Amino acid sequence: MFENKERTELGDLGEFGLINHLASFFENKNASTVMGIGDDAAVIDNGGSDYGLLTVDAMFEGIHFDLSFHPLKHLGYKAVATAVSDICAMNGTPTQILVSLGLSNRFSLEAVEELYAGIRLACDKYSVDLAGGDTTSSPRGLSLTVTVYGHVAKDKICKRSGAQEHDLLVVSGDLGSAYMGLQILEREKKVFMEQPNMQPDLSGHEYIVGRQLRPDARMDVVQTLAELGIVPSSMIDISDGLASEIHHLGMHSGCGFDVYDEKLPIDPQAVTQALNFDLNPSVVALNGGEDYELLFTVAQEHYDKIKSHPDFTIIGHATANKGAYRLIGKSGASFDIKAQGWQHFKG
Amino acid sequence: MFENKERTELGDLGEFGLINHLASFFENKNASTVMGIGDDAAVIDNGGSDYGLLTVDAMFEGIHFDLSFHPLKHLGYKAVATAVSDICAMNGTPTQILVSLGLSNRFSLEAVEELYAGIRLACDKYSVDLAGGDTTSSPRGLSLTVTVYGHVAKDKICKRSGAQEHDLLVVSGDLGSAYMGLQILEREKKVFMEQPNMQPDLSGHEYIVGRQLRPDARMDVVQTLAELGIVPSSMIDISDGLASEIHHLGMHSGCGFDVYDEKLPIDPQAVTQALNFDLNPSVVALNGGEDYELLFTVAQEHYDKIKSHPDFTIIGHATANKGAYRLIGKSGASFDIKAQGWQHFKG
Repeated sequence: MFENKERTELGDLGEFGLINHLASFFENKNASTVMGIGDDAAVIDNGGSDYGLLTVDAMFEGIHFDLSFHPLKHLGYKAVATAVSDICAMNGTPTQILVSLGLSNRFSLEAVEELYAGIRLACDKYSVDLAGGDTTSSPRGLSLTVTVYGHVAKDKICKRSGAQEHDLLVVSGDLGSAYMGLQILEREKKVFMEQPNMQPDLSGHEYIVGRQLRPDARMDVVQTLAELGIVPSSMIDISDGLASEIHHLGMHSGCGFDVYDEKLPIDPQAVTQALNFDLNPSVVALNGGEDYELLFTVAQEHYDKIKSHPDFTIIGHATANKGAYRLIGKSGASFDIKAQGWQHFKG
Repeated sequence: MFENKERTELGDLGEFGLINHLASFFENKNASTVMGIGDDAAVIDNGGSDYGLLTVDAMFEGIHFDLSFHPLKHLGYKAVATAVSDICAMNGTPTQILVSLGLSNRFSLEAVEELYAGIRLACDKYSVDLAGGDTTSSPRGLSLTVTVYGHVAKDKICKRSGAQEHDLLVVSGDLGSAYMGLQILEREKKVFMEQPNMQPDLSGHEYIVGRQLRPDARMDVVQTLAELGIVPSSMIDISDGLASEIHHLGMHSGCGFDVYDEKLPIDPQAVTQALNFDLNPSVVALNGGEDYELLFTVAQEHYDKIKSHPDFTIIGHATANKGAYRLIGKSGASFDIKAQGWQHFKG
């Protein structure tokens, strides 16, 4: 099976390369496995009118969050929200979660209670039940792994595949705010490390900082789509950045995408801060990640319903030009959208 | 919700105390949550003739395993087997797993492939599909979190509750071997650290060492019980040790248990090594843990079927003496069985 005994660094493959490589050694045996590796959630046929949906998301201290500026209550909320977001991306409804917690001995009961207070808030917000999990000591730091189970009507499921030429490319909410919030938090942390008497100044940045510390899963978008009578032809949530998710939709659907730069929805706070940090706001929107908005395609017939809805922005459309993902500027000039994603394993 | 702001050490509660404490702040909202926290797996009603079962198990390097003697392939197998064991404990059949992997940069692709080779072996053995997961870098060491989804016919489900007075207490396989295997491995590691030229000597200990490094989930027992036409009145898997699991069954069922010392099934290799290490073999069987055997109760009418089966040992019976768990020796003297479990959070 694995003959090559030389040492290959994980960073050479990246997360997606690694997952695809490992997945290639597995075959599904059970008829109930409708879809396994390769979408936002696994799809399970329990024999009823709905599919079961199953997903897991892990967060490690020092990699995914920094407790020096991330309150534990917000972190508990975020861990649930980001995992629930994967069920939303399938057009599904979450119902149960399991929380697996790794704790070093630096955490007290009171700290764990803060974390669970946030988990409970998220359970209430998304109407999910905490149905189990495990709690164990970890050699260092905090880790949170959240499993979410949910369901979706068989005729309403949205996969990454399914986008057709001419379909509209739509995104909910705004992009890049969570990334700019993180830049602010890291800057204030640095100031505080150098001058411990300085208080962190987050005034005027409440929205973007909140998007980083306490994002929401767009369950409301799933409900809105149902009310509008729209089943997207493909859907994904934006965790790694718009650019990366566009690549996923294109790759699974076998199409290309034209995206219009001026259409990218970016909050004024994020624009201002991007410029302050000498960053191009469009690049921040494309590659920032952690927005947990939904990116989806719909048939052109839904244009009026989508266009007039305040939660949605049509940012482009699918093309027959498979594998071509273009950002088109005001002048008509275009450049290729590269998928960055998170390169956790790099240096 | 959490007013007390003093610092309480997690070790003062222990794992079970912590879980019970946190669970008390949550209420189930969804009718599909048949059973949440407090059994081997969550029980989900998808509307069909079967319940869905969902469980998660995390393993951290330095806490649950030691890579200096645990081959990665065996570790991958063990992570799946121990999680699948929780589905077996509900009398269920596992169908899908998700694997969430945390990796520090000391791991190469080849190391990860070894791990997945073991995961694949376990997937084949238990007929489960690897249906997703995530892979991320961790700040230190390796962690593996395995989620398992499965199902069980509604009239065949076995919970921790349900044991009745006079029911027979039955265990599959043998007890204490995994613990004695670990003692051998740790002794040989110590010898090797002190004298690097010495080769570890595991000859004659193959069985008990194998029980530690590569345990199996007793899916075969679930099948045997079905063939014998037996639905246990209660069931649990032995991960923390027989003593601890007896307490769980008694607490959830509202009964006591009398256990006969001479009936405890202990492999001769484990007996020999327990004596070599100056340990009482019965204590090892009671508190060793990691056996992943099934402990269950059945009505007396099944006595003949159970008694004659080579996989099963009747070790005692349920009593009306709620909360009393007695080990009865040959002489008739008895002593209380204390639940040790794993005290991860202790010093």
